[in-house]
Amino acid sequence: MARKQKQIRPKARLPKGLRDISASEIRSLNRMLDVIRRQFEIYGFEPLETPAFEYTDALGKFLPDQDRPNEGVFSFEDEDNQWLSLRYDLTAPLARYVAEHYDVLPKPFRRYQTGPVWRNEKPGPGRFRQFTQFDADTVGTTNIAADAELCMLAADCLEALGIPRGNYVIRVNNRKILDGILESIGVDPHDTDHVGKRLTILRAIDKLDRLEIKGVELLLGKGRKDESGDFTKGAGLEPDQISTIIQYSQTSYFADTPKLRIQAAAEGELPSEPMAGGKIFSAWSKTFSVWKKLVSSSEIGIQGIAELEKMAVLFTASNFGPGRISFDASVVRGLDYYTGPVFEAELTHEIEDEDGGPVRFGSVGGGGRYDGLVERFKGIEVPATGFSIGVSRLHAALQHLGEFEKGGSEGPVIVLVMDRERLTDYQKMARDLRASGIRAEMYVGTSGMRAQMKYADKRRAPCVIIQGEDELARGEVTIKDLVEGNRLSAEITDNKEWREGRPAQFSVGEGEIVEAVQKVIARQADSNVSNQEIL
Amino acid sequence: MARKQKQIRPKARLPKGLRDISASEIRSLNRMLDVIRRQFEIYGFEPLETPAFEYTDALGKFLPDQDRPNEGVFSFEDEDNQWLSLRYDLTAPLARYVAEHYDVLPKPFRRYQTGPVWRNEKPGPGRFRQFTQFDADTVGTTNIAADAELCMLAADCLEALGIPRGNYVIRVNNRKILDGILESIGVDPHDTDHVGKRLTILRAIDKLDRLEIKGVELLLGKGRKDESGDFTKGAGLEPDQISTIIQYSQTSYFADTPKLRIQAAAEGELPSEPMAGGKIFSAWSKTFSVWKKLVSSSEIGIQGIAELEKMAVLFTASNFGPGRISFDASVVRGLDYYTGPVFEAELTHEIEDEDGGPVRFGSVGGGGRYDGLVERFKGIEVPATGFSIGVSRLHAALQHLGEFEKGGSEGPVIVLVMDRERLTDYQKMARDLRASGIRAEMYVGTSGMRAQMKYADKRRAPCVIIQGEDELARGEVTIKDLVEGNRLSAEITDNKEWREGRPAQFSVGEGEIVEAVQKVIARQADSNVSNQEIL
Repeated sequence: MARKQKQIRPKARLPKGLRDISASEIRSLNRMLDVIRRQFEIYGFEPLETPAFEYTDALGKFLPDQDRPNEGVFSFEDEDNQWLSLRYDLTAPLARYVAEHYDVLPKPFRRYQTGPVWRNEKPGPGRFRQFTQFDADTVGTTNIAADAELCMLAADCLEALGIPRGNYVIRVNNRKILDGILESIGVDPHDTDHVGKRLTILRAIDKLDRLEIKGVELLLGKGRKDESGDFTKGAGLEPDQISTIIQYSQTSYFADTPKLRIQAAAEGELPSEPMAGGKIFSAWSKTFSVWKKLVSSSEIGIQGIAELEKMAVLFTASNFGPGRISFDASVVRGLDYYTGPVFEAELTHEIEDEDGGPVRFGSVGGGGRYDGLVERFKGIEVPATGFSIGVSRLHAALQHLGEFEKGGSEGPVIVLVMDRERLTDYQKMARDLRASGIRAEMYVGTSGMRAQMKYADKRRAPCVIIQGEDELARGEVTIKDLVEGNRLSAEITDNKEWREGRPAQFSVGEGEIVEAVQKVIARQADSNVSNQEIL
Repeated sequence: MARKQKQIRPKARLPKGLRDISASEIRSLNRMLDVIRRQFEIYGFEPLETPAFEYTDALGKFLPDQDRPNEGVFSFEDEDNQWLSLRYDLTAPLARYVAEHYDVLPKPFRRYQTGPVWRNEKPGPGRFRQFTQFDADTVGTTNIAADAELCMLAADCLEALGIPRGNYVIRVNNRKILDGILESIGVDPHDTDHVGKRLTILRAIDKLDRLEIKGVELLLGKGRKDESGDFTKGAGLEPDQISTIIQYSQTSYFADTPKLRIQAAAEGELPSEPMAGGKIFSAWSKTFSVWKKLVSSSEIGIQGIAELEKMAVLFTASNFGPGRISFDASVVRGLDYYTGPVFEAELTHEIEDEDGGPVRFGSVGGGGRYDGLVERFKGIEVPATGFSIGVSRLHAALQHLGEFEKGGSEGPVIVLVMDRERLTDYQKMARDLRASGIRAEMYVGTSGMRAQMKYADKRRAPCVIIQGEDELARGEVTIKDLVEGNRLSAEITDNKEWREGRPAQFSVGEGEIVEAVQKVIARQADSNVSNQEIL
């Protein structure tokens, strides 16, 4: 039986929730990452790389879904029976790194990191078990200017990637304000008996988009039965408490249409008034006024608003106005570890949802202030703030907008092998092309002419070089432009006409190959048509 | 007890055998990877990315150390109790990918991939449990031109990275020749009873460098007791069999000194003669003659030599001669899955070993032809050949040679915060610098002037911008060149002289900051002195 099983061949398949990334997507992704990297660098962040896994105890458990603290992570034992876990984000390894090297690091410590992270979760559409994040964090300062800077960095990144102003918004809130409002309605957020209640309230607000006010009211009160009949227990608040929270969650200035947003983005035109040591845009002061009434005399709430006012002053001074940044009570962020300002970068252009209706593209990144991550190791509080971009999601958005797609043929020039005895000659042609910076290869398979042409098409080659007996006798080669050829063959329906016309095919002397190929490639780049699009 | 344990703080430490990579190494590594990527691209290979882990059965077990087939890999279960393993190389995932998409891939399929791989092994000096590989493979062809091309690619890569001709060699052998020699001495390599014996012989030859002829003779014969007294069982060959194998393992043309190698690298001067359908360098024909005698009438051995002769013809035609490529019987490669030509890229410059003696830097990559990897899934043999660069090892060699190190200050310009009430002004200065493409940040910590200067030094800032009360009154800022300042302060021993001289510090009008900083940075780049070197 065991012997028989050994002969069964394994099935070649990817584990579910994982994906391979092919050439054109890798190129497009790398172009995007280069733009982001350049922005993070220019803001003064330095790169850091940590390994894929850490000791499980050092990594800790800070996954968004706190209901299942022991799940969601891939863990394994090494040869010494030590438990290791694949990183589930880039923040937990940063905390380990900072704690390990605290004394020698510049303070504040400013690093960016990009790389894959892993979640042991049920995958779904667009939800993978390996995905890439791009993070910037400033560790070791309470200065709210560090938070403001991250919001501006996020906006600058999106614009550098080609997303027009008016098509995105950086939404900003402060966890302290919600705590202030809880205090004002008699729920002490730091009372250990209320930890669960606070979390339930946070999550209820987080669902505003999906459940609307009515659903959130139920989750803040007795609870809610969803369409499938499942009952979610509520926070158990009284009607007047619920009303205060709903009122809070509804405050924000966010222009309703792209047109209004672009108008608001011409921020100089909006009236501004002095406040908190500097001017801020009046749209924001209105939001702050409503919040001040709601937090009443709560110290933590007042402090939270003051922090956002400081950020607003810095935004205003750099002319980042309400067309780009919105102070918005509905931004909650899932992670429990945030302690101050939280922010979210949202793309506001509409796409079709599963039913064909219009929905906003939504969040492509977020972050906020957290104080406890390094404290786990050091026993002292190390204030920090960070921003994380969901790379795959942002890339999907950019592809949807047609950014970072490149026309032209990305493949190499293929030198066909017409005579197996003349490999050295064909190899020389490929080498000459390479020496001029042109991607090229001699066909290294063993098939005939027809298969070689098919191969060149599949490789998205810009052209092929052909030297058979006739061309050799004349001291020439034939160059066949595959992009032009495929375009013409799409137009020509008559097979005879096609063969006679031999479109997009021409001869040059052996010494003129490089120059001729350069012309073909330049012409294709100009016409911006890829081989793939035609085929 | 459980309660008490919960209060113990985890220790912030990296798992053994792993490492963090900091900013300057990341930048240097990325410059190196860009050069390699460019070479692989220009040879016509396309990028592919596969995820970090695979189903354990799909990955298979092809680790070099076949004595412990069940170890060496990190494995874990997912939520569905399926076994997964972190990839231990980039070839096994390639085999899965090719088998999964066989019908739609261009054939031959040519891809390159770079990324981390993981080994669950005892780490040692320079041996990590996560390290980076950079692979190119051509799958689906028996054409030996594909193997020849990889050797030339390896040589072109090393030269593009700045390693001079004469300081490296690509060593080439063919597993089939060894099998031919085994046949000629009466050991049938395909007899299942001889599988272990063949492997023992392979490994013995692989140890030539370390154990020299005497030690290898023992391993081919009765066995060998090492210095610690451990006994390794030998292959049990007779003296005349051993003598044939030793004679084989000693054949190669490899010039003894860098000077001779550079001479040999001027390959046009070496005589060449027609052979196997084309000319090859005579140094190689001598090697092939010796091998032909040794394999005698063994068909597999004759075939192996004929393959290398074909490669030699292609090398000769492209003027890759014995100064760059050596046919060398001592190249064995550890992995059992190779079936044809094997190759290794070795750096020949000498470094000091642990005892201060001179040793060659050694191997930085290798590869060869393998036929069985895809067959596991498909049941049909899919011939393939590949080359893999050990990225960390190659980078260490380049650092040793002083390549890819960059002078100058890599940090951002720091705008000091002299007055906490004027953050908006300082922020504006940072933004103006960024708008001109200069890395810059306003100090976002909360400490005073002295700590801010120390911070700027640690960040390797090229200069700081200072605007206190006095400068503000004059409408100016002070710019302090940290590189020049540290250089001067190293020269000036008298503290009074230092304070009066205020070296490398000057004032400019508020409108001239960008221009002045550009000049400072250009001057530093010219003098090619980094802040770090002085400090």
